[in-house]
Amino acid sequence: MDSKQAGVPVGIIMGSQSDWPTMREAATILDELGVGYETRIVSAHRTPDRLWEYGRQAADRGLKAIIAGAGGAAHLPGMMASKTRVPVIGVPVQTRALSGVDSLYSIVQMPKGFPVATMAIGAAGAANAGLMAAGILAVSDPELAARLDAWRAALSESIPEEPRDE
Amino acid sequence: MDSKQAGVPVGIIMGSQSDWPTMREAATILDELGVGYETRIVSAHRTPDRLWEYGRQAADRGLKAIIAGAGGAAHLPGMMASKTRVPVIGVPVQTRALSGVDSLYSIVQMPKGFPVATMAIGAAGAANAGLMAAGILAVSDPELAARLDAWRAALSESIPEEPRDE
Amino acid sequence: MDSKQAGVPVGIIMGSQSDWPTMREAATILDELGVGYETRIVSAHRTPDRLWEYGRQAADRGLKAIIAGAGGAAHLPGMMASKTRVPVIGVPVQTRALSGVDSLYSIVQMPKGFPVATMAIGAAGAANAGLMAAGILAVSDPELAARLDAWRAALSESIPEEPRDE
Amino acid sequence: MDSKQAGVPVGIIMGSQSDWPTMREAATILDELGVGYETRIVSAHRTPDRLWEYGRQAADRGLKAIIAGAGGAAHLPGMMASKTRVPVIGVPVQTRALSGVDSLYSIVQMPKGFPVATMAIGAAGAANAGLMAAGILAVSDPELAARLDAWRAALSESIPEEPRDE
Amino acid sequence: MDSKQAGVPVGIIMGSQSDWPTMREAATILDELGVGYETRIVSAHRTPDRLWEYGRQAADRGLKAIIAGAGGAAHLPGMMASKTRVPVIGVPVQTRALSGVDSLYSIVQMPKGFPVATMAIGAAGAANAGLMAAGILAVSDPELAARLDAWRAALSESIPEEPRDE
Amino acid sequence: MDSKQAGVPVGIIMGSQSDWPTMREAATILDELGVGYETRIVSAHRTPDRLWEYGRQAADRGLKAIIAGAGGAAHLPGMMASKTRVPVIGVPVQTRALSGVDSLYSIVQMPKGFPVATMAIGAAGAANAGLMAAGILAVSDPELAARLDAWRAALSESIPEEPRDE
Amino acid sequence: MDSKQAGVPVGIIMGSQSDWPTMREAATILDELGVGYETRIVSAHRTPDRLWEYGRQAADRGLKAIIAGAGGAAHLPGMMASKTRVPVIGVPVQTRALSGVDSLYSIVQMPKGFPVATMAIGAAGAANAGLMAAGILAVSDPELAARLDAWRAALSESIPEEPRDE
Amino acid sequence: MDSKQAGVPVGIIMGSQSDWPTMREAATILDELGVGYETRIVSAHRTPDRLWEYGRQAADRGLKAIIAGAGGAAHLPGMMASKTRVPVIGVPVQTRALSGVDSLYSIVQMPKGFPVATMAIGAAGAANAGLMAAGILAVSDPELAARLDAWRAALSESIPEEPRDE
Repeated sequence: MDSKQAGVPVGIIMGSQSDWPTMREAATILDELGVGYETRIVSAHRTPDRLWEYGRQAADRGLKAIIAGAGGAAHLPGMMASKTRVPVIGVPVQTRALSGVDSLYSIVQMPKGFPVATMAIGAAGAANAGLMAAGILAVSDPELAARLDAWRAALSESIPEEPRDE
Repeated sequence: MDSKQAGVPVGIIMGSQSDWPTMREAATILDELGVGYETRIVSAHRTPDRLWEYGRQAADRGLKAIIAGAGGAAHLPGMMASKTRVPVIGVPVQTRALSGVDSLYSIVQMPKGFPVATMAIGAAGAANAGLMAAGILAVSDPELAARLDAWRAALSESIPEEPRDE
Repeated sequence: MDSKQAGVPVGIIMGSQSDWPTMREAATILDELGVGYETRIVSAHRTPDRLWEYGRQAADRGLKAIIAGAGGAAHLPGMMASKTRVPVIGVPVQTRALSGVDSLYSIVQMPKGFPVATMAIGAAGAANAGLMAAGILAVSDPELAARLDAWRAALSESIPEEPRDE
Repeated sequence: MDSKQAGVPVGIIMGSQSDWPTMREAATILDELGVGYETRIVSAHRTPDRLWEYGRQAADRGLKAIIAGAGGAAHLPGMMASKTRVPVIGVPVQTRALSGVDSLYSIVQMPKGFPVATMAIGAAGAANAGLMAAGILAVSDPELAARLDAWRAALSESIPEEPRDE
Repeated sequence: MDSKQAGVPVGIIMGSQSDWPTMREAATILDELGVGYETRIVSAHRTPDRLWEYGRQAADRGLKAIIAGAGGAAHLPGMMASKTRVPVIGVPVQTRALSGVDSLYSIVQMPKGFPVATMAIGAAGAANAGLMAAGILAVSDPELAARLDAWRAALSESIPEEPRDE
Repeated sequence: MDSKQAGVPVGIIMGSQSDWPTMREAATILDELGVGYETRIVSAHRTPDRLWEYGRQAADRGLKAIIAGAGGAAHLPGMMASKTRVPVIGVPVQTRALSGVDSLYSIVQMPKGFPVATMAIGAAGAANAGLMAAGILAVSDPELAARLDAWRAALSESIPEEPRDE
Repeated sequence: MDSKQAGVPVGIIMGSQSDWPTMREAATILDELGVGYETRIVSAHRTPDRLWEYGRQAADRGLKAIIAGAGGAAHLPGMMASKTRVPVIGVPVQTRALSGVDSLYSIVQMPKGFPVATMAIGAAGAANAGLMAAGILAVSDPELAARLDAWRAALSESIPEEPRDE
Repeated sequence: MDSKQAGVPVGIIMGSQSDWPTMREAATILDELGVGYETRIVSAHRTPDRLWEYGRQAADRGLKAIIAGAGGAAHLPGMMASKTRVPVIGVPVQTRALSGVDSLYSIVQMPKGFPVATMAIGAAGAANAGLMAAGILAVSDPELAARLDAWRAALSESIPEEPRDE
């Protein structure tokens, strides 16, 4: 599921096991692009000390982007952004009653000082979080930049000219 | 503005100075009811260690209720609830773009395990936070219970029978 | 389902039988924490006199917290808060057309004077209502405070380090 | 402001003095149509016993329609509908943070059994509440029906053919 | 399904056949209360002339209340209110994309002059439309008033004291 | 304000005088493009017969597009679309409580059969209604097409390269 | 599925294959009215150059209306409107988390200069897009105007007088 | 206002001059952190070719992050993300009718393949866009990382312990 060797550049964290079906879309993208990552459950409310430690060590451990997914009163991405300068990419997980609007508002409406790079609600947002992490790494990694360009070109080429009945 | 002697039963905390015009309504109510309190700025994102310390010591310092106000991606009330068993009362501060719906969702939609007693958006909610704190203390303080009953009775008696033109 | 001996400290009330699948989450939590409670159907609209009586007697009967769940134009929590100084904890039940936003607004937007400690929409909110009630009792009950601390610690310890495929 | 002789057919009630600038639109319409009314402040939360009494006596006192305006967690119209069979017309008063959407949902989303005839948010809704009350009375009052028809015809005739610059 | 003899006091109209599963709740209530009614499909957009005729004749045909249900850009209730002084009760039918919020806003936000007595979204709203129609008729029909009181009392008596597991 | 000679191709209609400050943006655009138009107040609710007549004659009078603006329960555009095959362009006028979301939903959510070409809320939407009307006429008017192309080119050329402090 | 001969007057374009079940409603209507069309997948984000080319050539290729459907951050209709003066009709496709409100806002809230004729969310909107395209063509095609009138008359005649149980 | 020498790492682009009062917050932050940038007006709809060119050259010109602000149907950030692999940071500008919810949905709800790092609505979001751009550059620039750490520390230290009356 993930490559846990020291020094992976991307951390994928999420508030609970139930976020994994959404967040694995981020992992899939990173696998496709050949970017190492780790996956962790870090609950802002249930394991705040784990959040603290993860944030405190993130830069020193060599993390270059953190993808954080959470739902409802989704405090994980914003609290992580408060603890580390490593760019945090937030994924609002869809919720039952409010469809993820609660997650979205809790993640995107950060006060001045602590940005969270917020993605779309749900699985498309998680996939895009993987692409955004790769785009950040590609700023200083020309080989990854080339792989990302190829991934994007392949996506464009996969689009048929006309819709088909199924 | 507040009585800072050791052992006040209520803490009024807020994410920033700009929340004070709203949150002072809570202080006013506690003054009217003769309940001691302290006021602190504790920003979840800008002073996370302050939040950690406040939460870690809250029960031992004798706090019996914490009133926490914040706006936007309002993580303070929920993070405080994650750090202490002392009841946390959340006040969604009104915001410019989203009128406090972002604050409300960020505070009220807490996951199982960490309740925040959420009040109405804005000043009425802050005043009610003071009343809810007093109501919690009154559970084991008959004299405060009597003062609270009197406050409520006076409110009811202040209502005129008919509307008047102004 | 509930312990009905005189003097239970918590009342769980709800607007109709259809709210019970949600509200039993509150009862489960109180069972886990060893807190006595009673369960009642008290409809603000269909049985207003029952609401009146319940509120009028609440303090004298020894209730220390009232958990009130309702959906739609959810008047039960707020009307109960108008009838007794005992802290009222409101649970917005999810609804078909408006997903519980109607319930949430009807419960949380109380005017100055009558706070309702509002929880999240649905089952997580009901569970949290149980925890909030316990937290209120724990203010003056050190043994319950210790049980609540243990419950919270167990929740935190139950979180695995990494997500797992299912 | 109102004609308080015994036996007026319409009651205009509101949750607080601050609702009067909105609700007087209802009174103005009833004045224009020659329908008697009384005006009362009846707060669901602050004067619940007044609400109870008003509802209990409404039919016997000869009220044929009750116009009830309230804002926020607006419980007055629905609770009045629970206490009397006299038709209740609800006016959602505009609010600061949520613009009256909270008022609207609290009034319109009534459960089966207790309808509230909900009008538009704000002053237009209050005026229409007066017209709805008149329409209900006109069902059994041909003279009022004629006056109502004339009022409607005058309104239609007042509309110019073309817009004018101001 | 309905009693079509000349002179029924209530008309139940709806924008399309697909609204009938919702609107039959109104018919059921009127059956229970012994109130005569007719049912018609009157589409504001597809059969505007039928709407015109229905509205033009409503008062003369002896209709005393019109229940109008529609979904989406729900113009039927408001247009009917523009064509007749007979009280119009609007039922917002739940919709697929917007859950009936579109229906609700299209029905309730009427301009000054043309009130629509708006009910809750969906089936509960349709049932309440039946009760509101009965309440309007009961203003001048003591026997119906007594039946309505009995219906309400029976509803209250049907509520059990405690919730039961199922 | 408008050119009223017989045979203008565009009608600008609106629900009330208060819509004119918004709707004159449409007239301004048509003036700039040299397209003739007339302006009328046609209230769906206050002057339904005027609406009927306007719609019935629209095609025969040579109208090729109708711009209809309204606010709140905005029934004018949709009802006009039901009365004529001439393309109807709807402008949701901003409202006080709901900011025009009510207008938008009432106009855009039309059922199958009766499209309204809905524009943005407010003045930008009114201007765009003028452009859409011109675009429709330009389909069969090459000279107007050329003027429209020039208008668009001028708009693009007016955009400076860089923002400037003011 | 479509008639691809040079010179069809209507283009139906959509952001992805997954929009086709919605957008085929537009094609069905055009088939019923005997209007030629082509169908294309043109993704604003995945095939921006295709969008550019399609827009650049639209007028010269003889297109007289373009129906564009997209969901989420739905940029296709607005970007097409920026590239061609040919009238663009936008269809907001329903989405999972936000039900198409995101699509609707992204399509309808266009700035001054670039109108998109926005239809209802989902399949009804797509059908209406077909009717709007036909209405635009009918402005200069009396035979199509007659067929459109007949289609509308048939729709009206298909409405039964009364609802039936199923 | 900006340093325009070749090779600045950050581009700040916006849809119109009216976005500048919001977007200058991003420039201010970059000034404080000593990060070079350019500012451009690039309207997705009014200057699509400028958008195309900007995106096509972005990586080759050495841009490492693009901050894009827009309001309403805000297509600029997403279209830029479609044209370049350089990370795009989106700022939803507040709007008159919909308060920027339209801007937010148009920017954040991007489909899989084209992430936009979305910030909060308005000025705080623009400031945070500057910080996010700096954080991305800091991944491979230790000196900037140190300056960013210092900026964050200074922000934290600026928070007073207690609120003060003003």
